[in-house]
Amino acid sequence: MYDVQASIGQAHILRPDFGSDLLKELQQYVVAKNINLAWLSGVGAVSRAVIRYYDQTNKSWVDLELDQRLEVAGMWGNVSLLNGQPIVHIHIVLADETGRCYGGHLADGTLVFNLEIMMTSLQGPNVVRKMDDQTGLTIWT
Amino acid sequence: MYDVQASIGQAHILRPDFGSDLLKELQQYVVAKNINLAWLSGVGAVSRAVIRYYDQTNKSWVDLELDQRLEVAGMWGNVSLLNGQPIVHIHIVLADETGRCYGGHLADGTLVFNLEIMMTSLQGPNVVRKMDDQTGLTIWT
Amino acid sequence: MYDVQASIGQAHILRPDFGSDLLKELQQYVVAKNINLAWLSGVGAVSRAVIRYYDQTNKSWVDLELDQRLEVAGMWGNVSLLNGQPIVHIHIVLADETGRCYGGHLADGTLVFNLEIMMTSLQGPNVVRKMDDQTGLTIWT
Repeated sequence: MYDVQASIGQAHILRPDFGSDLLKELQQYVVAKNINLAWLSGVGAVSRAVIRYYDQTNKSWVDLELDQRLEVAGMWGNVSLLNGQPIVHIHIVLADETGRCYGGHLADGTLVFNLEIMMTSLQGPNVVRKMDDQTGLTIWT
Repeated sequence: MYDVQASIGQAHILRPDFGSDLLKELQQYVVAKNINLAWLSGVGAVSRAVIRYYDQTNKSWVDLELDQRLEVAGMWGNVSLLNGQPIVHIHIVLADETGRCYGGHLADGTLVFNLEIMMTSLQGPNVVRKMDDQTGLTIWT
Repeated sequence: MYDVQASIGQAHILRPDFGSDLLKELQQYVVAKNINLAWLSGVGAVSRAVIRYYDQTNKSWVDLELDQRLEVAGMWGNVSLLNGQPIVHIHIVLADETGRCYGGHLADGTLVFNLEIMMTSLQGPNVVRKMDDQTGLTIWT
């Protein structure tokens, strides 16, 4: 078990602008604020979404474009370091008018209707992603 | 990006009573305890649920009544101020016997079987909801 | 409303080993680290999953084995005490290649592909599970 201990810092209460790209906004935010380690959670709605599934066997991503207005039942993720820069990693569950859920890895192209996010910054040792041959992913190492 | 920083306060470990209305119980709790800013997460089960989808085009809510016993795969949300009073905003994902998920905005009429909730109170500037014409929602302003 | 207040402690940033049993790893971790009270959240992927639904009427568990590679859209839960020992309780939402979600109570037999977890330890009064006749579950008492 990879295991790093950190202290809890400030809570950032965030609402990305209407119409903005959800992932890009959060990515820009953590770079601008020098947040290198954090955990986040959010709820709200988007006007369209792009999520991804990781094909573990082929080590490739499968994109799913959802060109519809959806609730963000929830989103969760973190900020850590990749190549010396903070990177945001988020998973999301979306829900349509019938309550049906779509889940996966949040990708660029997801547009904010309204989102309410708490990002908790953490102070501790660097948590660093490096390419891992076994999974084909950049994992904490 | 709307951006407020707050300090992390106490954790409230909560279990609403069996048979109580989940949203109403939490709403009463934050008023009674003067909690004006918080984030929360929970897991458990309900004996029935009412969730809502926001129709972004028509700016109206669509209710979905689920008159069945369901796992609460998870619930997440926050407490902020509306008209000077704390208001609880929660999204939820429910799951049935086949694992099928139903997600949306938690509404009154959802009855507790057993719920385990952590609400983290935050100390910072007021986070206030106001009616927003573009979305038709009371958003952080 | 059962209501316990606790102080927020350290954040444990965890990545269970590839191929390990997700729930067992976390259970061993909290025993080894003497973590008696905590909240957690995680995202990632598993190579197979076992989740459970609680049949509230018959007071029995229904297991659902998902022998497929799945995203962990999210997982959430807590650590509290049962018979004087810390016990981990987790709910999870999994997603397949089409975004379809499966939710429930995390069981043994769920194998880690890659998981990123934040467990926040809490300091406060003991939070203790005891068998409750009304629900048939060990609930906070």
